[in-house]
Parts: sequence; C-alpha cells; structure tokens
Amino acid sequence: MNIIEPKVVEPIEWKNGWVRFLDQRLLPHSEKWIETNDWQEIFKSIENLSIRGAPLIGIAAALAIAAEAYRVEYNLDRRSLIIKAVNSLRYARPTAVNLSWAMGKMLDTFNNSSDNDLVFDLEKCALALWQSEKRRCIQIGKFGEKIIPKDAYVLTICNTGALATGGIGTALGVVYTAVSRGKSVEVFASETRPLLQGSRLTAWELKKAGIPVTLIVDSATGWLLSQNAIDLCIIGADRIAANGDTANKIGSYPLAVLCQRHKVPFYIAAPTSTIDPDTPNGAEIPIEHRQKSEVLNFFDLYAVIDDAEVLNPAFDIVPAELITGIITDKGIFKPPYAFRSLSTI
Amino acid sequence: MNIIEPKVVEPIEWKNGWVRFLDQRLLPHSEKWIETNDWQEIFKSIENLSIRGAPLIGIAAALAIAAEAYRVEYNLDRRSLIIKAVNSLRYARPTAVNLSWAMGKMLDTFNNSSDNDLVFDLEKCALALWQSEKRRCIQIGKFGEKIIPKDAYVLTICNTGALATGGIGTALGVVYTAVSRGKSVEVFASETRPLLQGSRLTAWELKKAGIPVTLIVDSATGWLLSQNAIDLCIIGADRIAANGDTANKIGSYPLAVLCQRHKVPFYIAAPTSTIDPDTPNGAEIPIEHRQKSEVLNFFDLYAVIDDAEVLNPAFDIVPAELITGIITDKGIFKPPYAFRSLSTI
Repeated sequence: MNIIEPKVVEPIEWKNGWVRFLDQRLLPHSEKWIETNDWQEIFKSIENLSIRGAPLIGIAAALAIAAEAYRVEYNLDRRSLIIKAVNSLRYARPTAVNLSWAMGKMLDTFNNSSDNDLVFDLEKCALALWQSEKRRCIQIGKFGEKIIPKDAYVLTICNTGALATGGIGTALGVVYTAVSRGKSVEVFASETRPLLQGSRLTAWELKKAGIPVTLIVDSATGWLLSQNAIDLCIIGADRIAANGDTANKIGSYPLAVLCQRHKVPFYIAAPTSTIDPDTPNGAEIPIEHRQKSEVLNFFDLYAVIDDAEVLNPAFDIVPAELITGIITDKGIFKPPYAFRSLSTI
Repeated sequence: MNIIEPKVVEPIEWKNGWVRFLDQRLLPHSEKWIETNDWQEIFKSIENLSIRGAPLIGIAAALAIAAEAYRVEYNLDRRSLIIKAVNSLRYARPTAVNLSWAMGKMLDTFNNSSDNDLVFDLEKCALALWQSEKRRCIQIGKFGEKIIPKDAYVLTICNTGALATGGIGTALGVVYTAVSRGKSVEVFASETRPLLQGSRLTAWELKKAGIPVTLIVDSATGWLLSQNAIDLCIIGADRIAANGDTANKIGSYPLAVLCQRHKVPFYIAAPTSTIDPDTPNGAEIPIEHRQKSEVLNFFDLYAVIDDAEVLNPAFDIVPAELITGIITDKGIFKPPYAFRSLSTI
C-alpha cells in the first residue's frame, strides 16, 4: 500500500526572531496572518484565542520567548526582560498544561545558558519543542490509527488538528493518519459553542484535506449516538491528571457520558506533554471561566441578547472511568490510568 | 400568604377574524407584530418558527382556520377552502402532536356545523381550545409548583413559557406559579442551539417577569450538573408517546442522561393535549429535520461557514426510563407511564 503522509495547514511560522501566525478567530472567513516579535502580542493572542489548541499555545509561547531573546539581545537587562516574559506567558491561560510545560523547558534552558548564548539556546529550545510536538503528533497518529475501522464514522468536538498543534494534530491527527493508510473516515464535528471551533476550524481544516465532515450542534450528539451512526469518539485534551481524569473543551463530559450509554468507545488523543502527573485528579485542574460576551455575541457580528447573566466555563472534566483509552506518542494507555511521572510514561 | 397569579406576555391575539402575533424570530431585538387573516401566512410562520411552542402552534393553527372561515364566509366553495386549510396546517410541522390534535377538534366542529354556522362554530371552537390551553397551563403550574423547593435552582432548555403556549407556560409555568406562591426560583437556561430559544426567548421572558436567569451554552449542562448547582430539571414536550417516551427540543436527551447520572430529578411539563396515546413509543414519533442554514448562519446576520454538510434534527426523544415525572393539567404522572387513551387521562 502506498502510504502518503498527511499534508496539513501550518498555523505558525518562525523566521529570524519573528513569529508569524494565523489569526484563528477570523477563520474560515479570512486567512489573516499576524507577524510580531512582541511577546505581549502573543500573550494577548493566546488569551483571545487567535492562537489556540493546547500544544500550539505551548509552541507559540516558546517562540515568543525566543523572539524576546532576539529583540533584547543587546539590552543590558535582557535576562530580566526575558524572565518577565516567561513568567507572564506561563499564565496566559490556566487549564492547558502544555503552556507551563513549555515555559518550564524554556526556563531550564535560560538558567543553563550564558548571556552570550541566550538567543541561540532559547531559539534552539523553542524549535526543538516545536519539532518534538510535530513528532508526537505523528506518533499519536500511528498508534491511534490502529483503532480506526476500515470504514469509520468518528465523532469529535472542538479542533484538534493542525490548527491546534502545529503538527498533524491529535484526535484529527489520528483521522489524517488513518486516511493516509487508505481507510475511509467520515468525521462528525460538534460545532463547539461558544466559539465554534468545530464549525469554523475543524470543518475548514478537514475540507481542505478532502475528508468528509458533517456538522451538528453540540446538543445533537445524543441523537446522533442513538442512531448508531458513530463507531468511536476521539477528542483532544488540555490536561490529563495522574489518574486519567481529562480536561478538555466544554461539552466533552456530556459526550463521554453519552458514549458510555451507547457503548461507543471514547478515546482521548494527546501528546505526553499534556499529561500532568503533579495534578492527582480532575478536581484539581483549574477550569478557566471566560467572558460572557462569548455566549451573548457572535464575534461582535451578531448579538443574541444585549445583556444577561452567563456562566461560561471553557472546559469540562471527563472522569477517567469514561475513557476507553488515551492515545499518546508513547502508545495507547488503558485503564486504570496511573501517570506517576513523565519520565515513566 | 398573598397569592398573585403570574403576569406574562401574550404572544397571540384574535379580533374579528384577524390573527395578530409576535414574530418570535426577531426577539429579543424587536417586538414586531404581524396581523393577518391569511392561513397561508400562519402556515409559513409556524414553519419558520415565527410562531413556535407545541401548544401555541395548535392555537395559532386553530385561529387560522377561524380566520379563513371569516374570510370566505360569503364564498360558495367556502367548505372546500376551509378544509384545504385544515389539511395543510395539520402538516406545518410534524413532531408536535398539539397541531394535529387542534386540527382534529376544528375538523369535528366543521363536520358538525351547518353552512350558516361555520364562522360562529369555528371561532368558538378555536377560542375554546385556546382558553382550555390557558387553563391547562394554570393547572400544570398548580400541580408542578409542589415539587419546587423553597429556594430552587431549576435547569431548563428551549422556551416553554408564555411565548410557547399562549398561557403562562408549561415548564416555565411551573416556575411562574412557584414564584407567585412566594418561592425563590433561579433558572438556568440552556441557550438551545441552533435557534437560541433559551437565550433569545426564555431569558427575555423571565427577565420581564423579574425572575433571575443565567444562560449557559448547551454543552455546559454537564459541568453545571457536576457542580451540584441544580435542584431539578423541567422541560416541555412536543409529543408524549403512550409509554411516556417524550419528544422535545434537541438537547433534551443529553440533559436527561446527565440528570440521571447526577441524581437530579428530571420532569416533563406538558398539557394533556401533548399526549399521543396512538403513538406507542418514541421510536414512532416523527423527528423533523430542518434546513442546514439554521446551523450555518445566525438569522442571516452572521455566517459561521459558507457551506458544509449538516445534520439538523430539531427534536430528541427522551426515553421514559429517564423521566422522574410528567406534570400535566390532570396531575403528575409517575412511571411506569401508560397513556391508553386521552379520555382515561
């Protein structure tokens, strides 16, 4: 069989101290690129979801530090400026652990680097981290595609593809890899309110890749599963606790509960950088609550209602007991999950 | 205690052969009323959801027939024109049984009426049907409010209030009645994609009534229930089968499954006109699939994505096993449900 490696969009670029990235808020309507060497602009872009997806925000933050090293190369207080960027970017968003993992790596490099080598070492570390996420996606795809039937109907939520990872993706990476191995996969994408990453990003990305995709509103997943229309569900992760409890986009928990009821396998796909052995369980994962305008307005274009009380949690916790398996770059983990330390994974 | 009967908006009016109704598609941004004596305009308005809510579409269709009787009063073929309207309106939407129930009542009246009495008899029947739905809402409220704790947090989906019924509502009628009896109720409204009846209509209606309401996206109901924030869930119904299986807005089934998991009581509130003893179970209830533009666009104001495959089922089936009780105008039914004929209810 002729294996063609998946070809995907690249949402971020790096050149001589500058970061160039796709503003994902504007997709699919316009493909606007932003070029900057200002870490505060990257910070803002992570916060407002121009850059999103757990692996990608780690990569973007690392590149932002490398850019800052370039920018302040001849500045006397460059070390304090760089450290300030690291300490801020680490907290741009609270739930995904990849961000603090990436900042930890950059900080280690910073601490072990001489003043003269800072630019070289930090750039090297950021690029290595990015390459490693790319390789991890490929590994996730290779392990994961084995669970995809020859003709598969896969349900997913949010966007876990190239746009989220800077590689071929996690859950969508599994789909891309299965397709490149000659399998026929049709994806059902939950639209993912409030910010519609399913309909804006996943549909756009899969159409570009020539993979059939059907959109449904998030509340129609129960109906879809009750029609026996789905072979398996694969979603991404923003943080996986030591016991396997997984934080992911709001709506992931209902999906897992419904899959259990309908005996549909429910998988998480994520790089090992998403595993956080220091967080014992899901109750300890901080859940980000975002502004109510995300629910009340559609990107400033349409207001549902002028004002109302809103609760807008951005993430769900999926209890480990509902997870059939966790597909990582090191293989597929099965319950009971016990991630004691990253070195043992 | 001073009992104040709930005061609510009135979404439909009748005067001398003319129907006047609120275009619910435009709420909450504008309160536009449409006045017509043309049954085809009512048909179109039911189809496009300007008029919605299972009880209200039955009332509106009955008034449309009465209007047609007025309009063609001196027409030689008035009987065939009226019968044509009945036979069309019956199929304006397939899922809610109230519509065919109302058309059945009008047809009985029509068949038992002389040519000279048609206008008088059909108007009388339509108004009686409307009054009976109003009384039913009041009865539902009286039976239902007994299950509401003194300080209650109630979860609901879609709109089941005055806007849906032409009375005080079904699920929201229970809330209104509890509040009028001095209880403190806070409502959590699921926004109800694709057409946002929760955020556009329920939030608007409850704010008008001075009842606190908090909006969440549909996929956040699992998170909300996992916070132990909800005392009970009450939703409406479009059709209740003989075995208690209930058709209601898409998203109702996941809600019921999540309530079961979190041991939160899950109630249906509906007039007995919503019970269809001729439909043995949920599998026999026709599910309406609506156009994909509802998912891809927001009321022609914002397009999520230009084109994509979409599945857009408008209703879910909630299996009877997940329903704690069915609150009707004849009392609260508890499982096992067995609605053999309307006369025995």
